[in-house]
Amino acid sequence: MPRTVTILGATGSIGRSTRAVIAENPGRLRIAALVAGRDAAGLARIARETGASFAAIADEGQAAALAAALAGSGIRHGAGREAVLEAVSLDSDIVVSAISGAAGLEATFAALTPGRVVALANKESLVCAGAAVMARASAVGARILPLDSEHNALFQVLGAEPISAIRTMTLTASGGPFRTWPAEKIAAATPEQALAHPNYAMGAKITIDSASMMNKGLELIEASFLFGLGADQLDVLVHPQQIVHGLVTFRDGSVSAGMAVPDMRVAAAHCLGVDGRLDAPPSRFLDLVAAGPLAFERPDLARFPALRLAIAALAEGGAMPAVLNAANEIAVEAFLERRIAFPAIPALVEAVCVQMTGAFLSPPSDVTEALAVDHDARNRTRSLLSGGRFTVT
Amino acid sequence: MPRTVTILGATGSIGRSTRAVIAENPGRLRIAALVAGRDAAGLARIARETGASFAAIADEGQAAALAAALAGSGIRHGAGREAVLEAVSLDSDIVVSAISGAAGLEATFAALTPGRVVALANKESLVCAGAAVMARASAVGARILPLDSEHNALFQVLGAEPISAIRTMTLTASGGPFRTWPAEKIAAATPEQALAHPNYAMGAKITIDSASMMNKGLELIEASFLFGLGADQLDVLVHPQQIVHGLVTFRDGSVSAGMAVPDMRVAAAHCLGVDGRLDAPPSRFLDLVAAGPLAFERPDLARFPALRLAIAALAEGGAMPAVLNAANEIAVEAFLERRIAFPAIPALVEAVCVQMTGAFLSPPSDVTEALAVDHDARNRTRSLLSGGRFTVT
Repeated sequence: MPRTVTILGATGSIGRSTRAVIAENPGRLRIAALVAGRDAAGLARIARETGASFAAIADEGQAAALAAALAGSGIRHGAGREAVLEAVSLDSDIVVSAISGAAGLEATFAALTPGRVVALANKESLVCAGAAVMARASAVGARILPLDSEHNALFQVLGAEPISAIRTMTLTASGGPFRTWPAEKIAAATPEQALAHPNYAMGAKITIDSASMMNKGLELIEASFLFGLGADQLDVLVHPQQIVHGLVTFRDGSVSAGMAVPDMRVAAAHCLGVDGRLDAPPSRFLDLVAAGPLAFERPDLARFPALRLAIAALAEGGAMPAVLNAANEIAVEAFLERRIAFPAIPALVEAVCVQMTGAFLSPPSDVTEALAVDHDARNRTRSLLSGGRFTVT
Repeated sequence: MPRTVTILGATGSIGRSTRAVIAENPGRLRIAALVAGRDAAGLARIARETGASFAAIADEGQAAALAAALAGSGIRHGAGREAVLEAVSLDSDIVVSAISGAAGLEATFAALTPGRVVALANKESLVCAGAAVMARASAVGARILPLDSEHNALFQVLGAEPISAIRTMTLTASGGPFRTWPAEKIAAATPEQALAHPNYAMGAKITIDSASMMNKGLELIEASFLFGLGADQLDVLVHPQQIVHGLVTFRDGSVSAGMAVPDMRVAAAHCLGVDGRLDAPPSRFLDLVAAGPLAFERPDLARFPALRLAIAALAEGGAMPAVLNAANEIAVEAFLERRIAFPAIPALVEAVCVQMTGAFLSPPSDVTEALAVDHDARNRTRSLLSGGRFTVT
């Protein structure tokens, strides 16, 4: 019997990688339900191609478009929050949680049911409510497998080693398109320049986060909750070739590094190979000779203050990571809309974090609390934005 | 209670690394017995320093020297084969098997007793009698931990993964002092040039083997027995920085790499940390930024035919790896004595292997059989040597 897979975020880049791996392994994996945000036509096409039994679109305004696109297919469908939760509740062995942003939080929580594997790519689940998500998974007996390349690599090389064996965990960063740019040039960066990621084709939000290195900061926070390590045991190295994705340094000096070609299908295959590794096609194997020398640099926190802010938010703890994340989402939107300059992203995030310092002492204990923090931080960010101090004149 | 450690090969480079780690962890590790080959003064000094309860020297001619050097210490001692086996038979939790050459074979076999950890650096145990050693360990319930950097790295990153998850295992090689030399220059290499290893200070035999890359060939054979993989799943990459020691490529494209500074104390600490990782001093942690870019090249089997011969011997199977090893030991001796040129080492090994092809169908099933093969191959090598075809005129 093939394992069944529900994909939350089926039309995005991680959804695409996941579907590719499932298509390569028809005897072992089968799509159960699919969820997308707004792309009704894309969702319908994928549902037809994969023989999904249910398709849900988060945006209720797309209900009619989805119904029309699925007419005659026999595929059940729905739109809006309830439909998303229905998709999650349908029986499946593995849920791939790859909805981008805080919107993925509720669905990820709902996906944590006994015996299930949740392949987690939705950063916000861990950034905004990491303690609650990990506690729920453990309480119900669900298994979280990280689907981000970096966390997946760390998860694999950690293996069965106890956390007490770890000295540090290191996440690598490509350094993004501005890795070698001087600060003055970064200050004038356009959205087009920030969207030109050197290695991965991803959504706009995460690509901007890569350019600011906020993405690595959010990943550091994720790693903290996934593995139970504090900010003092987490580290970032810039590694432009993106071959080494993460490193675990053990107390005795041994270092285990997780490597792969920069292709999200590798981590997806690991998560989907729950009952034994899947076979990748020959083209997806790493050729270290062809990859060229692997270089490592320390991140420059002066040119990339977003990383510094994320580390500070992690050290501050409580709800501060959720505040950081919400402020950043709004700031990135504003940058993409050309309302603020690139350096105003971290400046705005910092201003919101400063405002909220001390405001929330305890970490969100459930989705409701996490979303309340998120909502409040977004409002504060918007209000700072409309104040005009950060906007381009 | 500290774990007790018996060191076979206490005065060699691996013995020194092991002792350093034990000295760093006085509360967790304690020396039980010590064995050395010929260096009575060195052995006596170490026995006094470490408070060993028994010291054995393999060379019976050194009995009086050892007795004199230990006079008044209260440390029991002995010389010759029986004394070595007595040292092994004394109670200890961990035996470090680091006697170089076929001489270490019998002691390694004897060290495999129920519940014991045998930290294995003696290559010949696996190269000459790999199947028998692994079968005995499994039958008696002893645990073999590889102490070579490469195998230790592979062992660590493999973790609890089943062998069926592996696509390939890659051992890295420094490339030795002749990595960039053209064939004509290698042909004229002196023992002094071959002994100038770029990264490690080791014994003469293993340093020459690094220069010819026979060392990597022997390690490939070791890996085959340790992990149960055939020649077709084992691979070598030249990596001059010697930071990555081994890589496991899984079927799904994930690669786990074992790294560390090029310092044998790291692998020793892993093997000795059987009840939890030991803490290394800060200076022994890897700094990837300071290490500089990590480069990988394919080995050149034309300039380094010894590696090709080892791969062929592994593929041939049976007793051929033991033949290869014995012929190589004699050939390296002859090179160090300036009786043959550097390229005559692999030429002589190849000639012996060709002679013996088909002569032994089954792998040695115990020490006696392995030593018989070894003895015969050595005689054949000496006889070819005295024939004059390979010697320098």
